[in-house]
Amino acid sequence: MHLPSVAVPAVLISEVGPRDGLQSVKTIMSTADKIRWINALHASGIREIEVGSFVPASSLPQLADTAELVRHALTLPGLTVMALVPNLRGAQAALASGVHKLTIPVSASEAHSLANVRKSRDEMVATVRDIVALRNALAPGVKIEAGVSTAFGCTIQGAVPEDDVIRTAALCVAAGVDESGLSDTTGYANPAQVGRLFRRLRAEIGDKAGAAHLHNTRGLGLANCLAAYEAGVRTFDASLGGLGGCPYAPGASGNVVTEDLVFMFEAMGVCTGIDLAKLLAAREPLKAGLPGEALYGMLPEAGLPKGFVQDAVHVD
Amino acid sequence: MHLPSVAVPAVLISEVGPRDGLQSVKTIMSTADKIRWINALHASGIREIEVGSFVPASSLPQLADTAELVRHALTLPGLTVMALVPNLRGAQAALASGVHKLTIPVSASEAHSLANVRKSRDEMVATVRDIVALRNALAPGVKIEAGVSTAFGCTIQGAVPEDDVIRTAALCVAAGVDESGLSDTTGYANPAQVGRLFRRLRAEIGDKAGAAHLHNTRGLGLANCLAAYEAGVRTFDASLGGLGGCPYAPGASGNVVTEDLVFMFEAMGVCTGIDLAKLLAAREPLKAGLPGEALYGMLPEAGLPKGFVQDAVHVD
Repeated sequence: MHLPSVAVPAVLISEVGPRDGLQSVKTIMSTADKIRWINALHASGIREIEVGSFVPASSLPQLADTAELVRHALTLPGLTVMALVPNLRGAQAALASGVHKLTIPVSASEAHSLANVRKSRDEMVATVRDIVALRNALAPGVKIEAGVSTAFGCTIQGAVPEDDVIRTAALCVAAGVDESGLSDTTGYANPAQVGRLFRRLRAEIGDKAGAAHLHNTRGLGLANCLAAYEAGVRTFDASLGGLGGCPYAPGASGNVVTEDLVFMFEAMGVCTGIDLAKLLAAREPLKAGLPGEALYGMLPEAGLPKGFVQDAVHVD
Repeated sequence: MHLPSVAVPAVLISEVGPRDGLQSVKTIMSTADKIRWINALHASGIREIEVGSFVPASSLPQLADTAELVRHALTLPGLTVMALVPNLRGAQAALASGVHKLTIPVSASEAHSLANVRKSRDEMVATVRDIVALRNALAPGVKIEAGVSTAFGCTIQGAVPEDDVIRTAALCVAAGVDESGLSDTTGYANPAQVGRLFRRLRAEIGDKAGAAHLHNTRGLGLANCLAAYEAGVRTFDASLGGLGGCPYAPGASGNVVTEDLVFMFEAMGVCTGIDLAKLLAAREPLKAGLPGEALYGMLPEAGLPKGFVQDAVHVD
């Protein structure tokens, strides 16, 4: 019997569009449309999706159906189902929903922390500790990631000292999280800084160094991902169509575009496990669910190069 | 007497918009508007500009005033004035105009060479040799660069063997050019390939390895520039507003955006000698001269990060 050779993914692309993308969009996408989109993402080979956020529906009505999405996503084989939680109450709801993984945003900038969650950084680390204790008691198999936000600069305080970033990640690890990544919340990062900080992060917390969550606000998104990859990062957050994260300027996209990022890695011979043609097809249910919303991405406009052959991808 | 410390540029940004950009645009920009734009580019600290192309006005009426632009650009202090020439007749006109530097496109793809200049690669190398002989006879101080086009793939033949690329560059050097760079004419390049090819290029032709001319067609432009920088490249072609090079898909920009590229290097602490605020201001005469034309660039939309301080730049 001849089995086709199948490359093993060398990087994990974590799709954050259903959370980070949709929370930035005014339109509320219906649950049925979100499910079609999540199914299409999964069908392309995406194996980690942040499906929503456990926050009061009054503050983010776009994400009010997160528990229902978790329930559906848990039926998709091989998928790690994530949700964002900003506090203990959110964590309780998330753990009750059955998610595989929680992500908690923790600002490296004191000014951003106070503005965003009305807590100091130290208070937020205490919240992380409480969430870890809850997880340990209720669902010890669930993973917890702390995402250090404003890790590369802050729109309120400007530069964020690198020591503050590394200290915040180390405090989260000491509080019991399984991994801590770095987020360019503001689109301020540059490749030299990204490489330096992820190397310091790994030196400080070793294998608990987590994902790179990078934005394309100033066009440096993929260059920053490349620098993170060269610094040893193997998990990358991205958003289909670059949806979301456009708080600073019209026309300036936020999240790194999943399609372009996957193309970059596949073209380099770094296997993502994702079928590019199916990934591009996953834009259709997104467009259908958010009619009129601007999507980003250069690959979708230009198409694949002539003669481009992707390594065989086995998608369940 | 106190002199402010001034950083010495570590990379050369070669602005190709007045040639590569304008040749792709249907509108003919007036000579007066082009001069205002070139002046603004120079005022920002740009020190190499490809001001046009010496080709028959019937084939590229947009560039029919190249000799006049050369005459003006030669009055700008410290500026290297370049023009593209595809053949001996163009080289004669360029040398008569007084340019500092000629650039000759030489395809690595036989199919592209035949389609683009109706010459085989070997015939094109013979043309290079003729142009070098002419330069030696008439203006030995003028520099000649061969830009190896389709170096990362071809829309006609698909993949281009790396051996063909390196061989083409080596033949051009043997024919007497001062430097040979690599061009991603089609927007097919990826960072791994860019790094590999520029390393091979330097191993083959040493200090005669020239500029990286990279496109952003599939969003990888800055990541590819970063890879080229890491491979030792120090001259980068770019186009203000990403003007030009949009032959494949609407909305897909061609050339790397000068503003975003300069921001990337400056944010990394790699001095370009270019004042970012003045560079952004150089978009105004471009917009005024090409009303209604779409310009690209993420930095112009998002603005500089809060607290971003550029190293002192001394601009004449």
